[in-house]
Amino acid sequence: MIKKALPLTVEDKQLVQAAKDTISKYYKHKKHHVAAALRTKSGKIFVAVHLETNVGRVAICAEAIAIGSAISEGENEFDTIVAVKHPNLREKGKEIRIVSPCGACRELISDYGTNTKVILSDDGKLKKYVISDLLPYKFGQT
Amino acid sequence: MIKKALPLTVEDKQLVQAAKDTISKYYKHKKHHVAAALRTKSGKIFVAVHLETNVGRVAICAEAIAIGSAISEGENEFDTIVAVKHPNLREKGKEIRIVSPCGACRELISDYGTNTKVILSDDGKLKKYVISDLLPYKFGQT
Amino acid sequence: MIKKALPLTVEDKQLVQAAKDTISKYYKHKKHHVAAALRTKSGKIFVAVHLETNVGRVAICAEAIAIGSAISEGENEFDTIVAVKHPNLREKGKEIRIVSPCGACRELISDYGTNTKVILSDDGKLKKYVISDLLPYKFGQT
Amino acid sequence: MIKKALPLTVEDKQLVQAAKDTISKYYKHKKHHVAAALRTKSGKIFVAVHLETNVGRVAICAEAIAIGSAISEGENEFDTIVAVKHPNLREKGKEIRIVSPCGACRELISDYGTNTKVILSDDGKLKKYVISDLLPYKFGQT
Repeated sequence: MIKKALPLTVEDKQLVQAAKDTISKYYKHKKHHVAAALRTKSGKIFVAVHLETNVGRVAICAEAIAIGSAISEGENEFDTIVAVKHPNLREKGKEIRIVSPCGACRELISDYGTNTKVILSDDGKLKKYVISDLLPYKFGQT
Repeated sequence: MIKKALPLTVEDKQLVQAAKDTISKYYKHKKHHVAAALRTKSGKIFVAVHLETNVGRVAICAEAIAIGSAISEGENEFDTIVAVKHPNLREKGKEIRIVSPCGACRELISDYGTNTKVILSDDGKLKKYVISDLLPYKFGQT
Repeated sequence: MIKKALPLTVEDKQLVQAAKDTISKYYKHKKHHVAAALRTKSGKIFVAVHLETNVGRVAICAEAIAIGSAISEGENEFDTIVAVKHPNLREKGKEIRIVSPCGACRELISDYGTNTKVILSDDGKLKKYVISDLLPYKFGQT
Repeated sequence: MIKKALPLTVEDKQLVQAAKDTISKYYKHKKHHVAAALRTKSGKIFVAVHLETNVGRVAICAEAIAIGSAISEGENEFDTIVAVKHPNLREKGKEIRIVSPCGACRELISDYGTNTKVILSDDGKLKKYVISDLLPYKFGQT
């Protein structure tokens, strides 16, 4: 079902860097350890950190804030999104790494663009997939 | 990436029926229109309806309640889960149909059993997949 | 705005005990540390543990599972609910304590019964309030 | 428990207007009908629309995106927040109205500033409260 991974472009690597720069700048223990970077079809980049909360269930993912920020500035057409995670206190020495969107984010990303591409890490190697490949048999579509 | 669908058993069809019976019995406009049925490895079946809410974001999926009910009775090993949706008022004449788990439920189901199987509908045909096939490159595992 | 706390009954203390017994029995590190007990107007008690998840945002609160379990058995009229939390590994020696419902649960509890009562702890003292007192100016009602 | 409402300032009325302007501009049926405006202590205003989703449970509230956008630009000190709701297709002729934060947002708002103020509507009259008054006996604080 999942198609072949798509090739990464120079812009994709800049997008990953934008996400890394964001979490490097705003990382805060128990508050923000994930950041996302979203590139619109018009070429703009929106970055955001996630919001950790006392009650985990009400936390807000970085991807969601990046998408919401873009839409709140009139940008609705999304090309590619990526998220990265800062090591926590117990992971000292480790590097910022690329993370996959959680299942809830996959719903959101695909609702706001079935062709949006996602950059993720497959055993340390960067890969890019269309969101629909990451949420096969989506609820409401079968 | 996604493997071949698994064959459905007689027990699987009984599980689908248990979910349908539950929503037939407890369907309530704007409150409960989805039901789930979960079979544990010990062969017990737990059924539940979902809880719609005034603020959609705090709604609780049927799969989550079925899993939670099972665990709250000491059952931790899950074999197969399925969810069904009752037609709403505008869909009169339509039948109860099988629905895929949403992305949030896929996270939950796989957290509580990476080999749990999910029954879903592929263009009207029943199929069964391992949950990991429905959430490729899960967050935290790459 | 918040009214006077209501007096606790013998049944309320049994309800607290049912929640404590549930988490004593099913506590599991990083999986289940909160339990809830719900008493219906017909006098039945439904207990449940919460479901922690890898992605916090998809976790399911114990109150939600208790309510969902009750409704999935045809019980819709709720009298009183309470939740308790088991100490985690760093809190050794501490006791199971009563916790307030989170904001998301307050939405859910009040959607399924505006007069449902909640037992909580005020500086170590048990108190009971109507849910509407714990979510003043509820969304959609002003 | 809830204290007296606080007096509204000229800046508060401008904040309400900023939220109304945002939803007037970006309202989209079944996608965005709520907007929020957040004023930081430094006097900046961040606006956002909410993100409705196919699966309600994964929707993202406008308040959360406004807070996330601010933090993602380095602003962490919040003064006041307000949300407004655009009438839907069945409510033609009605005006944009102020809405209270849902319970999940109250958790988030108070986690990111226990003294943040919220503007809401009490029977059509604008009122302003400290967030802690809107989430009495917050989870984790008793």
